[in-house]
Amino acid sequence: MKITAVIMAGGRGERFWPKSRNSCPKQFLSLTSDRETMIQKTVKRLRPLVEAEDIYIVTNAAYRSLVKDQLPDVPEENILAEPCARNTAPCIAFAAAVIGRKYDDAVMLVLPSDHLIGYENIYVKTLKKAVSVAEQGKNLVTIGITPTYPETGYGYINFGDEAGDAYKVERFVEKPDLPTAKQYLASGKYLWNSGMFVWKISSVMENLKEFMPDIYEGALRIGESFGTDSFEETLVKEFTAFTSESIDFGIMEKASDIYTIPGSFGWDDVGSWLAVERINETDDDKNYIDGDVITVDSKRTTVCGGKRLIAAIGTRDIVIVDTDDVLLVCSKNSTQDVKKAIAQLKEQGRTELV
Amino acid sequence: MKITAVIMAGGRGERFWPKSRNSCPKQFLSLTSDRETMIQKTVKRLRPLVEAEDIYIVTNAAYRSLVKDQLPDVPEENILAEPCARNTAPCIAFAAAVIGRKYDDAVMLVLPSDHLIGYENIYVKTLKKAVSVAEQGKNLVTIGITPTYPETGYGYINFGDEAGDAYKVERFVEKPDLPTAKQYLASGKYLWNSGMFVWKISSVMENLKEFMPDIYEGALRIGESFGTDSFEETLVKEFTAFTSESIDFGIMEKASDIYTIPGSFGWDDVGSWLAVERINETDDDKNYIDGDVITVDSKRTTVCGGKRLIAAIGTRDIVIVDTDDVLLVCSKNSTQDVKKAIAQLKEQGRTELV
Repeated sequence: MKITAVIMAGGRGERFWPKSRNSCPKQFLSLTSDRETMIQKTVKRLRPLVEAEDIYIVTNAAYRSLVKDQLPDVPEENILAEPCARNTAPCIAFAAAVIGRKYDDAVMLVLPSDHLIGYENIYVKTLKKAVSVAEQGKNLVTIGITPTYPETGYGYINFGDEAGDAYKVERFVEKPDLPTAKQYLASGKYLWNSGMFVWKISSVMENLKEFMPDIYEGALRIGESFGTDSFEETLVKEFTAFTSESIDFGIMEKASDIYTIPGSFGWDDVGSWLAVERINETDDDKNYIDGDVITVDSKRTTVCGGKRLIAAIGTRDIVIVDTDDVLLVCSKNSTQDVKKAIAQLKEQGRTELV
Repeated sequence: MKITAVIMAGGRGERFWPKSRNSCPKQFLSLTSDRETMIQKTVKRLRPLVEAEDIYIVTNAAYRSLVKDQLPDVPEENILAEPCARNTAPCIAFAAAVIGRKYDDAVMLVLPSDHLIGYENIYVKTLKKAVSVAEQGKNLVTIGITPTYPETGYGYINFGDEAGDAYKVERFVEKPDLPTAKQYLASGKYLWNSGMFVWKISSVMENLKEFMPDIYEGALRIGESFGTDSFEETLVKEFTAFTSESIDFGIMEKASDIYTIPGSFGWDDVGSWLAVERINETDDDKNYIDGDVITVDSKRTTVCGGKRLIAAIGTRDIVIVDTDDVLLVCSKNSTQDVKKAIAQLKEQGRTELV
């Protein structure tokens, strides 16, 4: 069966402010020394499995030209531009309806655009297994990441009986507290919820019809208009009317026939500035330094420089990010609070800096 | 007797890099919210005691125009431009010789250009006492600061018997270690060496003649040429030949008739970036913030902003200084290491940033 991929690239990436901006979010940035952007890496690592013409990018209309520039191999008509942000369920329904018009049925990989994968061969192998499970019946497959420590920042997948290459999903659970996360890890029955899904178009549409009928109907109307003169008008009308809902809450937590494939391929969600030292090489003092930087007795310091010289002296456990108009100095304990700084700027009406 | 003042303004202020640069050292900067520069404050607080025409600024030739711009009331011929840096003894000898040509004798206050004084009335009163002690015989008077804590970064003055408003100086001692500094403080017999001196021109010249005869002779030749066509030539020839030496080591530690006046007038040597939070108002979290800055849960953070927005998030005990071409992020424990960063830049030949 045809394999297609839908890359979700509408996110804002607030936690990577001030590099990530409304005008150029995280997925369009490079956070690694090779200078490839996150979304370029995402597409590249898929290519052994999916033809460029079968890769779809769902993004905000504002980012259409960024996608075009960064992914010249992806056909322009495969850039599906959302008129507004409505979370993952409408995003996936939109893409499924469009792909469903092209192929009678197809397998659809649903993937975030802003994660990193260390072991791409293993990743592709895992996706292949997921594809073969998804092809059976109306299975919905999610890739679960084998946890390596009791992370409290991710949701978990509790799995049960083995079923071939996959495991039956018992339930999805929210971000746990630390004792609970430790129990999960010790039990050997929990995986991290990575937000990567594999299913047939027919399977996800059936489930949308059952659990999110309004979105199902709207998506069908969008799909029918795709390629016609009325497409833009239909899209705006239907999409703006969709409820904002995640695919996890909208379908995965309600449907039966949910399977998970455990994956262990150096996955990193690149969730905050702390990721930079994980995904790049650091020096002997655990500093990550990019740009025109001098250090004196600095340790565990991440510096993402801009155009000016940065001198870091005696710094510890801190992130410094320099851009033309904003400088961030952030304790490593506070990287989640970057959002609060953005909120302050929005309150002050300084949208040009957000 | 006429009271004159010599303000030493040739220093480089490395510890306030990157605001303080070779092209504009600390004494020509404002580090306080009123935007007056250090040297402007120095002159202003002297004015109750000294006429503008009797204030002399000894500085490096490179800073002549800075002095002219910042101190329009000081006559241009009172700007004594050193052709090179030779520490305080040649600086003072140069000024004494020039003033000695104008007045038969006069009292000479010798003052740094880059300190701050909290209680200016008390400061002026203390200087007046020093003047009256200096007028007697060939006394050399130094202002000692009553210590408020066991500082290890200053030299100390050990004083003995009371002599009117002053005390006889027993000896000058180098920067002590902490236990020694604590003993000094407990003894009640030690003052901080502030680098402020008061004496008659005749007294300091006599002492120069005795202890630093080469500098004495050279300074006389400079003084004789002052106001003539050969001045520049004489100055360069004589001054560059001077040994680099401090007045403390060259005279004060050797002469007799040394007196000290204890001063307690909110003196601050503004010796490092740590001074900024002492000399300015801080917020409830002990942050000092200047410029376009937003903070989220920052404490004890000093931010001297530049043209761009700075976001400080979760920072503790850190100094952030932004300029157009250099950004400094420095732990408060490491403010003395700013010099090491400058040394690195010099090694790299990046003099434009120093």
